[in-house]
Amino acid sequence: MSSYTTLTVPTSFADVNGTKFAYRRFGKAGKLPLVLFQYFTGTLDNWDPAVLDPLSQQREIIIFNNRGIAGSEGEPPHTIAEIARDAEDFIETLGLTRIDILGFSMGSFVAQQVVLDKPELVNRVILVGSGPRGGEGLETFSPEVWALFDKPYNQPDELLLDTFFAPTETSQSAGWAYLERTRSRTKEHDGSLSDKVVPSQLAAISEWGKVRAGSSDYLKEINHPVLIVNGKRDVIFPTINSYTLQQQLPDARLILYPDSSHGSQFQFHENFVIQVNLFLDEIPAR
Amino acid sequence: MSSYTTLTVPTSFADVNGTKFAYRRFGKAGKLPLVLFQYFTGTLDNWDPAVLDPLSQQREIIIFNNRGIAGSEGEPPHTIAEIARDAEDFIETLGLTRIDILGFSMGSFVAQQVVLDKPELVNRVILVGSGPRGGEGLETFSPEVWALFDKPYNQPDELLLDTFFAPTETSQSAGWAYLERTRSRTKEHDGSLSDKVVPSQLAAISEWGKVRAGSSDYLKEINHPVLIVNGKRDVIFPTINSYTLQQQLPDARLILYPDSSHGSQFQFHENFVIQVNLFLDEIPAR
Repeated sequence: MSSYTTLTVPTSFADVNGTKFAYRRFGKAGKLPLVLFQYFTGTLDNWDPAVLDPLSQQREIIIFNNRGIAGSEGEPPHTIAEIARDAEDFIETLGLTRIDILGFSMGSFVAQQVVLDKPELVNRVILVGSGPRGGEGLETFSPEVWALFDKPYNQPDELLLDTFFAPTETSQSAGWAYLERTRSRTKEHDGSLSDKVVPSQLAAISEWGKVRAGSSDYLKEINHPVLIVNGKRDVIFPTINSYTLQQQLPDARLILYPDSSHGSQFQFHENFVIQVNLFLDEIPAR
Repeated sequence: MSSYTTLTVPTSFADVNGTKFAYRRFGKAGKLPLVLFQYFTGTLDNWDPAVLDPLSQQREIIIFNNRGIAGSEGEPPHTIAEIARDAEDFIETLGLTRIDILGFSMGSFVAQQVVLDKPELVNRVILVGSGPRGGEGLETFSPEVWALFDKPYNQPDELLLDTFFAPTETSQSAGWAYLERTRSRTKEHDGSLSDKVVPSQLAAISEWGKVRAGSSDYLKEINHPVLIVNGKRDVIFPTINSYTLQQQLPDARLILYPDSSHGSQFQFHENFVIQVNLFLDEIPAR
């Protein structure tokens, strides 16, 4: 077992068809590795140590920047389908043939596309702050959220207090604790985001969210066990979408937390880690 | 700690304002007792040992027949409000001043009424196969369910295979295992149901389910932590009601299981017991 943690693990690089992808890999080997897909504008430095560190005591954790994000080279693509293909190429480059996956927010769309593209690659799927293609209110952020992008913050990551956490004292306090945790990395910081990331990822989210006839028919094809997690009132991707996913996926369970928004897994991190381990280890078996 | 289990605990009787109520109490003393409210036509003998036995290793379990049900004297009342008052009188007769409560199906309506009537009595609330007053499709069973009451079964409890479990091989197999478990009690069986139970409980469910303006406003008054659990496709009380409860209660979390119906807690009993203990012990604290 590597003794690295979320804050100490060095950044590695993989040559993915000629493009350098930044990633970090740590934790206990033995079980299937857990590959995580990150949120809109998120980078290696934004994963929560309070989630990854305890998970890494049970299994290997692999986080990465997809093409064109922060420390990874290339241009960020404009669709979830392309982002997923890049993710699949990265996973293949690492020589992995069987993995569990966890996608948060936009990363949960990528996770759905990866399991559709490569059903044999994936064992189990965790979708946090998610929704189906063409889901309710996914094509564009709400006016309330757009307004936040113009709101002045002392530090840019404080936007997450309004997007990941609920406007209550308890949730905001959990939000500050989350920010403190992610700010605690003192060395080998990830690269910064190019100007191309925001427009291309917005385009990818919008294309995924576009309502079309039969938008969500693909869910019937995903026969993998899926764990869906969200907060009570997700201001980014409305919580009803998590319910819809559970209802339409053939084998999905749903957990909704109280007093929370898009980032409930950071707020209820101790319970979330227990739930992820229960699910991935299928303890107890049914 | 008593060495009794669900199948061996003898029936006790309490004098509730002059009426004899049958109940069973067992398990480890120390924490708050967990008082359980039973489903439509359910009796002491229908609780699942696979749920109660492991729970009883952590806390005292109290199950009872309300007024006029099986081995309890009196006439069954026709409204949830009256059923709840009888439950409150029973709890007071036992001298309990602080409890956790778990209601299943019709019992979950009783649990909501009890916490509304006696907020200071109740610590935490678990609602399984539930819905709010005036919820969707609660006023009467669906035609599909009414038809089941005329379906011939080898033994009457096999109706539960169709109402508590999903029409899949895995869920039906879990259903048979549940029936085997509840059939295993060999002594001190509960009394049988009088002819008055079905019509009075149907009336009580229907009155609860009646849609009125502001039917569910009362949910805002329940500030207790609530755990809501249901199956993916509850044929008795549609699953959307569990989502609605989570959205409207101030402090509720929701768990929905896959491949399941009204009795998901019996199908996923091992996971359910873990979730109940996590919730009641608030481990981990937020």
